[in-house]
Amino acid sequence: MVGFGTVGAGVAKLILEDADVIAAKMGVRPELACIVDTDTTRPRPVQLPPGVLTTDLNRLLNDPSIGIGVELVGGTGIAKEIQIKMLRAGKHVVTANKALLATHGNELYRVARESGRCIAFEASCVGGVPIIGAIRTGLAANRINAMYGIVNGTCNYILSNMSSKEEKFSQALAKAQKRGFAEADPTLDISGGDSAHKLAILASIAFGWEIAMEDVFVEGIDGIAKEDLRYGREMGYRLKLLAIAQRSADGRLSLRVHPSFISAETALARVDGSFNALSVFGSAVGETLYYGRGAGMMPTASAVMADVIDVALGNSQTTFNHLRLRPREEIKQFIEPIGEIVTRFYIRVMAKDEPGVVARYGKILADHQISISGALQHEGTGPGDTVPVVITTHRTQEKNMAAALAELRKIDIISGKPVCVRIVDIPQDKDA
Amino acid sequence: MVGFGTVGAGVAKLILEDADVIAAKMGVRPELACIVDTDTTRPRPVQLPPGVLTTDLNRLLNDPSIGIGVELVGGTGIAKEIQIKMLRAGKHVVTANKALLATHGNELYRVARESGRCIAFEASCVGGVPIIGAIRTGLAANRINAMYGIVNGTCNYILSNMSSKEEKFSQALAKAQKRGFAEADPTLDISGGDSAHKLAILASIAFGWEIAMEDVFVEGIDGIAKEDLRYGREMGYRLKLLAIAQRSADGRLSLRVHPSFISAETALARVDGSFNALSVFGSAVGETLYYGRGAGMMPTASAVMADVIDVALGNSQTTFNHLRLRPREEIKQFIEPIGEIVTRFYIRVMAKDEPGVVARYGKILADHQISISGALQHEGTGPGDTVPVVITTHRTQEKNMAAALAELRKIDIISGKPVCVRIVDIPQDKDA
Repeated sequence: MVGFGTVGAGVAKLILEDADVIAAKMGVRPELACIVDTDTTRPRPVQLPPGVLTTDLNRLLNDPSIGIGVELVGGTGIAKEIQIKMLRAGKHVVTANKALLATHGNELYRVARESGRCIAFEASCVGGVPIIGAIRTGLAANRINAMYGIVNGTCNYILSNMSSKEEKFSQALAKAQKRGFAEADPTLDISGGDSAHKLAILASIAFGWEIAMEDVFVEGIDGIAKEDLRYGREMGYRLKLLAIAQRSADGRLSLRVHPSFISAETALARVDGSFNALSVFGSAVGETLYYGRGAGMMPTASAVMADVIDVALGNSQTTFNHLRLRPREEIKQFIEPIGEIVTRFYIRVMAKDEPGVVARYGKILADHQISISGALQHEGTGPGDTVPVVITTHRTQEKNMAAALAELRKIDIISGKPVCVRIVDIPQDKDA
Repeated sequence: MVGFGTVGAGVAKLILEDADVIAAKMGVRPELACIVDTDTTRPRPVQLPPGVLTTDLNRLLNDPSIGIGVELVGGTGIAKEIQIKMLRAGKHVVTANKALLATHGNELYRVARESGRCIAFEASCVGGVPIIGAIRTGLAANRINAMYGIVNGTCNYILSNMSSKEEKFSQALAKAQKRGFAEADPTLDISGGDSAHKLAILASIAFGWEIAMEDVFVEGIDGIAKEDLRYGREMGYRLKLLAIAQRSADGRLSLRVHPSFISAETALARVDGSFNALSVFGSAVGETLYYGRGAGMMPTASAVMADVIDVALGNSQTTFNHLRLRPREEIKQFIEPIGEIVTRFYIRVMAKDEPGVVARYGKILADHQISISGALQHEGTGPGDTVPVVITTHRTQEKNMAAALAELRKIDIISGKPVCVRIVDIPQDKDA
């Protein structure tokens, strides 16, 4: 193993404490040969046998008795070199590193193939929930039509608290950091970047395509005001940062991560706190949903060890060898640009409380072929004699909305920037 | 394939229509060599190429180009012979037959091992949801502490309608039959027998034990009155037929299927209609939940084809070879008898509307060390001047409750048989 942080400690714990249980049930016994980390002195929540911890990566690379290298360093720098070295030294690689796979996965898969080894990455998405296996093996006979996921626990924890406790974004973020649900630098999470990494990996498996990060549209949650969570709630919605992969009628694929209002009646709307869930729609199976902890020491370690066992059994190698990803050069024309998606919208403007405002507002929308589905305006005025006017729209193309918003920003009856959140209508698979 | 009913037609459809998609994504191409069925004339919702349908099992057995035999006959009679013949003829077996595996699985697994072949049975539990793979592969590094499942769509459809539409059991059953959610003879479903078959299979995989049907306590839903669904609802519960596998503190395993009141706040309480879901608690991963269609042509066909692909890749064989089940002779002492489980209860009696009734009722419970947790008595009287008195209890051993109920049945202040439903407190895995 390389990288002895939180997840690494969890993996070590599982091997040291449960090797017998695993051997009894699975017929293979994992052994911890060595852990490579630059820091060999910091106390960790697991007691290693003497001599296991080392700073020398070569000890792992040059030991022919070591069959599997677990990379838990994270990031896209040194981790990439480590994976390549391990593969070239004849080790299979198990990793939780979504950033690396999402950005350099195709290159790493090639190195693995050249080396006759595999890369297993169940732990890279949705923590301990075996979602990669479910999509790749369990739903293998399906054409995947859509996936909707809450795949970042930090964002979901923040949005849940903003919604249920009426906290501001900054308050909810501070609490998440205090409780260990957000990092000191939360940028990668709240920007949507981490969710985008996971979506790229999940989509490549689900659709059999080489996906690049530039194929994924990303919008984070840092601009979200608690008022909009409340107004949305009043209209029957919950706000979630969704990772979405959606097949259009014309066969194109929309890949996007953005704050999304979803019906309070959907299963995903009820996924609270740091929990994750992914809803997958298959051509034969209909909707299936997977739920659990998306991060944390033991849940992630559970997924890493699942891969270690699967590699030891030989199954990961077979699955990896048979995985076909259509080259990006071939598929990139089928990625639907964000401007062309068709969706519903939630719009809030702070309008001046004077005659004719609603008429002008409505006319701008109508001029862009945007039809209003619902509206909410509470009596009374707010700052600067303005009132929040919330509307929801019927389905329209994103670029129509972008043009309407640009126009709304220019007119004097509206104060500040209009708030715009996409409404995502997750199909409801119900009894006929 | 043997058996050309609903699921068989679905499997044929997937192979005939999607072989290219599967080949492109998975690197293996399924081919439909022949379908064996006694009825070759009945119209089916799929058009077979000429010559595929036959009444002759030997055509499958003697064709060396056929690697996989899919048994979709169902039942425990001829299906068993067919599976044995296919294994002995060197075919791997894929099946959705839970009744057969639950009652004769250990014998069939032995035949498979002797023949150097495997049996794959993802389709036997929770339809298209890849739950066998999740437990066996995805959660391989966990000790499973508990599983709670809604694994029979017929019962869940009936209970959902009784609850939301205040229908009587007989009405809801008739509707389920009319809509195709229940068979003409619904006994196996409503008795809990089908759920027990699935629980036996799931538990054997999750715990690595040879489970027999006699290890599973079973109680069906046919005695449920709509009034109890309503009273339970008023107290914050929903009634579900749960399949439960629960590890006690002393290491024993309780396996049971029975109507269960669960908190309306749990995810399983919101699983409605014919849908299935399974909540699995692992030592490392915590709670994970899997949701989807538990039956039907295409969802079940999806799972059958997932196994066909996994067998073709060679992975099923490896997993099957490494599966270790502790022999039943060794484990049967660790099965917790139903009388020894500790649980909460919902009790309704029809009490005479006269002084002293509640006092005598309470005394009988207290005499058996049963402590009351909640109570519900609406004003006004019902048939024969009786009033429904509902109480919920704190945790107590089942045999205490059985003794108290026997006594309650004898006293003259209570009319008819007391209603007793177990309350199952599913642990809530939440953020700290």
